[in-house]
Parts: sequence; structure tokens; C-alpha cells
Amino acid sequence: MSFDDTSLAQIDQYMNDAWDAFHVYRKKSLKERAALMRAIAVELEACGDALIQTAMQETNLPEARLRNERGRTILQLNQYATACEQGEWIEARIDTAIPDKAPPKPDIRKMLVPLGPVVVFGASNFPFAYSTAGGDTACALAAGCPVIVKAHPAHAHTSQIVADAIHTAAAKLNLPQAVFTHVHGKGFEVGKALVTHTHTKAVGFTGSYNGGKQLFDWANQRKEPIPVFAEMGSINPVFLLPEKLKSSATEIATMYAGSITLGVGQFCTNPGLIIGIESEELKTFTHDLGKAIQKIQPGVMLHTGIAKAYAEKKETALMQEEVHLVAESEMVNTSTPAVDGTGSLSDNPKPFDSAQGLATVATASAETFLNNPVLQQEVFGPYSLIIRCKNKEEMLSVAKHLEGQLTATLMATNEDVLQNEDLVEAVKNSCGRFILNSVPTGVEVCLSMHHGGPFPATTDSRFTSVGADGIKRFARPIAFQNWSNELLPEELKNENPLGIMRTVNNDLTKNVVL
Amino acid sequence: MSFDDTSLAQIDQYMNDAWDAFHVYRKKSLKERAALMRAIAVELEACGDALIQTAMQETNLPEARLRNERGRTILQLNQYATACEQGEWIEARIDTAIPDKAPPKPDIRKMLVPLGPVVVFGASNFPFAYSTAGGDTACALAAGCPVIVKAHPAHAHTSQIVADAIHTAAAKLNLPQAVFTHVHGKGFEVGKALVTHTHTKAVGFTGSYNGGKQLFDWANQRKEPIPVFAEMGSINPVFLLPEKLKSSATEIATMYAGSITLGVGQFCTNPGLIIGIESEELKTFTHDLGKAIQKIQPGVMLHTGIAKAYAEKKETALMQEEVHLVAESEMVNTSTPAVDGTGSLSDNPKPFDSAQGLATVATASAETFLNNPVLQQEVFGPYSLIIRCKNKEEMLSVAKHLEGQLTATLMATNEDVLQNEDLVEAVKNSCGRFILNSVPTGVEVCLSMHHGGPFPATTDSRFTSVGADGIKRFARPIAFQNWSNELLPEELKNENPLGIMRTVNNDLTKNVVL
Repeated sequence: MSFDDTSLAQIDQYMNDAWDAFHVYRKKSLKERAALMRAIAVELEACGDALIQTAMQETNLPEARLRNERGRTILQLNQYATACEQGEWIEARIDTAIPDKAPPKPDIRKMLVPLGPVVVFGASNFPFAYSTAGGDTACALAAGCPVIVKAHPAHAHTSQIVADAIHTAAAKLNLPQAVFTHVHGKGFEVGKALVTHTHTKAVGFTGSYNGGKQLFDWANQRKEPIPVFAEMGSINPVFLLPEKLKSSATEIATMYAGSITLGVGQFCTNPGLIIGIESEELKTFTHDLGKAIQKIQPGVMLHTGIAKAYAEKKETALMQEEVHLVAESEMVNTSTPAVDGTGSLSDNPKPFDSAQGLATVATASAETFLNNPVLQQEVFGPYSLIIRCKNKEEMLSVAKHLEGQLTATLMATNEDVLQNEDLVEAVKNSCGRFILNSVPTGVEVCLSMHHGGPFPATTDSRFTSVGADGIKRFARPIAFQNWSNELLPEELKNENPLGIMRTVNNDLTKNVVL
Repeated sequence: MSFDDTSLAQIDQYMNDAWDAFHVYRKKSLKERAALMRAIAVELEACGDALIQTAMQETNLPEARLRNERGRTILQLNQYATACEQGEWIEARIDTAIPDKAPPKPDIRKMLVPLGPVVVFGASNFPFAYSTAGGDTACALAAGCPVIVKAHPAHAHTSQIVADAIHTAAAKLNLPQAVFTHVHGKGFEVGKALVTHTHTKAVGFTGSYNGGKQLFDWANQRKEPIPVFAEMGSINPVFLLPEKLKSSATEIATMYAGSITLGVGQFCTNPGLIIGIESEELKTFTHDLGKAIQKIQPGVMLHTGIAKAYAEKKETALMQEEVHLVAESEMVNTSTPAVDGTGSLSDNPKPFDSAQGLATVATASAETFLNNPVLQQEVFGPYSLIIRCKNKEEMLSVAKHLEGQLTATLMATNEDVLQNEDLVEAVKNSCGRFILNSVPTGVEVCLSMHHGGPFPATTDSRFTSVGADGIKRFARPIAFQNWSNELLPEELKNENPLGIMRTVNNDLTKNVVL
């Protein structure tokens, strides 16, 4: 069974309903919004094994990974619910009146309010955590916005089950059904209709550059442009600094063989570029990484389309002049059960050969890399390119040449960091998350996480899609001037009934306003 | 003497210099940035009467107003400098490592860092506060961004004096000259070259819809789109609710005669639309407002171009079917000294007739208004249109029909507010600042101020151009993962050497991290 595309007339009706629901939902207290988010988490858990089984069928992802990812999705809903009701994100600011100032200073109080209906496009590689009830949906609901999710066609059934769970949660709390809407669409028409609808006030997206940029352009060409937060991935450069490489080449190779192949390389934080300075140690690192990669049994990719795109992009990269293959993992016989990059068993029933993602490492000189834009593009999958620089200056040139990145990593001793200030600054300036002596894969869900970065990593470097600060993507400030205490929203009343942190006459406090 | 347009080759050179200066200035501490801002304030003051005289010559604005505006500009620089070094805007978030979590949780610490060179377009109506050393410049410098200001051609000499003052301040602090750059341009070419330059990373603008929207489009059509904060004005609707109008029609009329004509109506918060329900009290209000407007001597507008545009737009509005003139102030004989709307004397030497802005009030039914888009456009100047609604439902229709606004005002008793929840919600949803029983003109500079609003009031409703929160327009988060304490920026070190407020493991605190 597959789902028909939602008709454009139906989308118009859904958006009108979402607009009406907005006027109900935006007035719900922070506690009521948090209650909805927690209820969704409960329903997700209640979906039980059936949801995991469906996701395994649709995505080729192994059971353990999917169970973990559902756990993470539930954690996100609960963590952002807590942040929602704690209310710091609302940025309550109170300046009390000074009547005898010339001219008199009025009483002004500011807080964030929701933008309106938010359209969310889920990611193919995270059927739970970045999809239907994922981070964007959680953030928008926390902000007070109804959500319209377009199911990713690669896991439409999984998405439908999650959508039903959300509707169950909303119904139990007597919220309007249209606080959440689920639509299907295999072509671009449904997405375009959603983004260009007059009642859509913001867009969240996780996926490819081409997809995200198209949504961004549609949104900005509207009569009323709307914000789009599109997370479009990156190549996540890793810089191997000389002193660190000298002491730890083999150790780093082992660490990165795991990171490159984790989840069959299907993470937006996958390290696609490793930059070092020509030396015996770089040769050792390259050799050891190649050996390790060859030993890793290839995993099954999300679907044959992604596997095909990976194979083609990789082939194109390897065909470029002066690019040399270091190592490639071997295809597994189809009669054996599939094993993914994390080593856990997958009993996926899909054709295996066609979806295998063979881990691959290649190498090129910095000169070759700098002069060939093909090599600077993301190859989504378990692939990484080792760049050989002649010296520190050439490494700096590579750093300065890079486009915006979600992450960048330094493998460096303290001495390396202190002696390469220009490099460190250039790398820092290009990325949203800056990692020292670790791997970029693995995105911790916490307030200090920044999952974002300069364009083209995202369409707005000022916001994150992971962590409770992501709520602010979907809210805007409003200042109340000269309102009497009884008419102000709870968040701004003198007595601080919600007990939230507020900036009162420039001091952060939970105190009442006297 | 007039200034030649800066050449495109020169702009390219300036932007390259600004990019180099960015790499120096971004590393300056919060205290050093604050010191620059305060030094600029000192130099602005030191410009003395010469600056005021030049501004009077160029803008037709009266001396008292210009002295006040310079004072406000100095206040902004000092206030945002204090906010800059207090560091709350930097949103420091620290989550410490939990090594025994599965998988281990790394140490992650996040803060805002500057975007890069910011291009600022000053406003014609605020030669100081929203121009060369105005709010956008102050916010960008606080964020750590070099600034490139395009002088408004209507006050290019004033702008040049202020630019020289900024350069003096930067030189005294041994900062690179290119931390601030001043260019001239009368056509669109200079602006386009600035916005589309690869080293420009954000844009601030205050002015017309056409100007701001053009910059926004150029910025989004770049290979690397950049954020534009354009404040494009609005018609600032005022809703007269029945009970309040019954008790205070004459009082409100007097209050609004002052607000409509303040500064010859040349404020982006000028109340251009007043909405009431047909009644004897609305007739009294209309009559009294008309009488008051007639008595107010017209002021001189900023320049003949603005006065001409005002006269034309007003004439177009008045020519629409079913629009009736209520009152217009009388032109003053050119032989008498000019008096502006605030009542202060102006000894401006410019031709007087051609720049006079005659205060005008007109009226139309809600039906006429709703069916005629011409009436929904801003008429920049001392003009307001009174909309007569048949009943509460029609008033709600008007509220729902309005585009995004910088401000909206209710003249209402508490009972009015409580009995018109739908109206209050609809008005709130359309504006950035929501005023009760006062006037929208006058924008207090404080943290709780929001000067912004849904499109087309601005191009991004999530940010403000007044108050220290405006700094965040020009900064983005970066997360440091797994960095040792000695290598972290001061803002994120365990010992909190700057003594700033930070969120440590979800608690706001100034404490050290143990």
C-alpha cells in the first residue's frame, strides 16, 4: 500500500484549519504546550514494536538504531517540554515606568509569541528524531505553533503511525485536531503548495542542499516572505595538526574509521574531508585508515535511491584527475545477513546488493582539491577524502576556502592549537560546532548544542535545529506598552505567577515586580 | 559641495579591508568593543555645534530635535556598550561532560560569535539615531562585526562628520581603520555592490518598503544568501474601543493630533489609521481631531522630495471614492519663520513652501477601506485616516485584514479589552509593539523595547532594531565540543573570568564551573 499525494485543494483546507487552530493553540499556557509534547512522547512509546518494525521495513535501519532513535525523539519531546514551561526561551523583559523622566518612560514588557503554522519536512535518515514528531515539530509546538508535516516518501508508513500517535495525544488533551496535520507528497507540488500558502509562517527542513535551497527560494519569493530553517548538511572537515598526528596517527585512524562508517555514513555530520600535512605520519594515518575501512563490512543504505546516488557521486569524485583511491570495503555476498556499520545485525528483507554502501577513502593533494569544485561537494554516505597539504600555509588555504559547515574538527595538542592561531580562527569562522580531538558524528541533545552553521550548511546560521534554543526559530518578540497588570499575559505580570526567569530593569531575576 | 559616488572598485577594496579587519576585531574582548562604542559616543559629543548646524542645513529638522537625537544616539552607544560587556546577549551555555553516560556525553559550550562585515543603510528621518553611528552600527560593533555605512544622500555631510568621529575613536584605540567604512552613493549601484559583495555577511536598513525589499531580494539571490534586517515602516493602526471612546473622545482627539503631527509625521511609528465604530462619540472624536489638526501650524519636512511624495500620496488617497477630507492644516506664509509639529522654532534657510507638510485627517467606511488597497498603504507624513466600522464584527474584519505592523494601539477600558478578546488577539498577532491607551510615536531605548514586526513592517519579525537585543541580529552561535579549559574563549572558561551570566547544566548562574 502506498499513499496518494494530498491534493492541493485538501492542502488549502488543511492550512485554513491550521490557521484557525493557531488562534486556539497560541493562547495555551506554556504548561499546556508542554503537556501536549509529553503526551506525544507517551503515545510514541505506546506505538511499541509495530512502529519499529514498520520503520525497519521502510528504512533498512537496524532495530537497535531505531529503538535508540525513538528513545532520543522521546527525550527531545520531554527535554524541550521542560524548557518550554521553564520559560527562559520566552525572553521576558520588563522595564517599569519612570513617570518623572522627560519625556516620561512608559512601562514596557516584552516576550516571544508564536509565528503561526509551521511546515516541517522530515529527513530520510532520521525517521523519528528529525521527522514527524522530531525536533522541528517539538520546537514549533513549544513555541505555540501548529505543525504541518509532509511525510518523507521514503518512510511514509512510519510517518503515518507517528502522525496518528500525535493526533491521539492532541485529542486526549482536547486540542483542535489541526494543531497537527500530516500530508503525503512524492513530487515537489505538495511541498511548494505548503511553503507558498499564505497561512504558512515558517518552515523547518532537514535534507539535501537542492531541496532546502528550493524551499528557501520559494519562501523568499512569496508576497510575504517567511523564515526557512533548512539544515542541508556539510562535509565536516577534520584537520590533523602535526604534533597530534605525530603521536596518534594510528589511534586517529581507528577513531575515524568508525566515524566515517557509523550508520553507513548517513549522518549530516559525517566527516567527509580529512586534512593533513604531508609527512610520514600522514602516510601512516592514511594506510591505517585504509586498512580499517577495508575490514568494515558494508551496511545497507536507507533505500536504493540513496545507495545509487552515493555510488554515483563517489564514482564521480574518484574519476577526477589526481584523486587516488586509498581503500574500499568489499561487497558482502547477498546470501549472508546484512551487518551495518555499527556492527549490529539487520534482518532487512530488501534487495541487498543494490542498497549496499561500500565505505571508501580516497586522497588528493590540496592543490587538486582547491582547484576542483567537484571535490568540495558532499558525498552522502561512508566516504571521506584525505587532503595532503605541502605545509601549514596550504592547510590554512584549505581552511579559508571551505564553505559553511555544520561541524569542523581539530585533532590537535594544546601546543598545536596555540601555534596555529590563524588556522584555528579560520576553521572556527566556517562552522557551527567546533570539535577538539573527537569525532563530529553523534549530536548530543542539550541546550549547549548548536546544530547549524553558515550557509550552505543551513539557510540561517543564527539558529539551531537541536536543543531547546531551536524553539526560537518559530517565535517573535512582542512588546506590551502601558498595559495594566491584570491585562498582561501571565509571563509578564508583576507577581510572576509562572515563576520564570525574567530581566527586570536589566537584572535577571525570578522576583516579583514591585 | 557634494560627494561623488564611491566607485565599485573602491567598494571592493573597502570590503576586502573590512574582511581583514573582521579577523582582528572579532577577537577583541567584550570590554574592548564596549570601549570603542563609548569612545564613539565621546567623539560624537565632541563634534559640538558644528554637527548640529550641518544636520539642520541638510534635514530641515529643528535644533532641539537634533540635539535630543544626538543625545539619544550617545545613550544608545553607551547602553548597548554596557549590554555588550555584561555579556548576557552572548547566550553562554555550558553542559559539562558525563563520561559514564552511554554513549558518553561530551563537554559542550556554546556562545554567540560575530557574523562578519555588516552593511548599514541609514534612515533619512533620523540623521543620527538610525544612521551612521546609529542603532544598527552600535549593535554590529557590539557583536564584533566591522561596519560599512552607506551615507544617506539626504544628509551626506552630516554622515561624513559622524564617520570621521568614528574613525577618530577607532584610531585612538589602535583598532584597524576598516573596522568602520563610510561610502557615498546616490543611485542604487553602490547599495547593490555592497549587499552583493561576497564579504558582506549581514545588512541593516531603515527606510521605505521598496528600498528594504530590494535589498532583501538582492541578499537572498546571492550564491550565499545573507540575513537582512530591513525596518520598512507601517501604518500603525489605532483601535478606539466603544466604552473608552464614550468617556474620552475629546481627550483622545487631542492626544492624537499631537502624535500624528509630531516631527511633521516623519516617524515610522506615526499613527496612519484610526479605527472606530460609528457612533455619536466617533463623530465627536472626528470633529475634535479635525479642529485640533487645523490649528497645528505645518512643519517643514526633511527635504522637498519627501514633501512632494507626501503631497502626492495624500492626494491619491483623498481622490479615492468614498474618502472624505476631515481637516487639513493651512499653509504658512513663507515670510514667517517655520514652526514644526512639536512647536519648536526652526530657522531653516531652505525654500519653505515646497517642503511644508500639511497635517491632514480623512475618513472612510470600513467597507471602502477593506475594498481599496490604495488606502492600506503608508502615507509617510502627518496624515491619518479614520475608519468607520458599522459594528464590532466589522472592526474585527479590519484588524484581521491588516498586514504586519511595527505598532498597534488600543484605546480601551479594561472592560473593552476583556469583552473583545478576538479583536485583541487579532491586533496582537499583527504587530511588534502593542500599546494601550497611549500613542505609538516615541520609541523608548531599553531592553524591553521591540522595534520590529511581521512583514512588511520588517523583513524578519524575530529581531528588533532598538534595544540591546538588536545585537543578536549580527551574531550566530558556535558550540565548542571537548575543548580543554585553557583553550576555551574567556566567556566559556570554568572560572568565568568575565563574570557573565551563563546557563550551566540548565541553571542560569554567574558561578564558576566545578
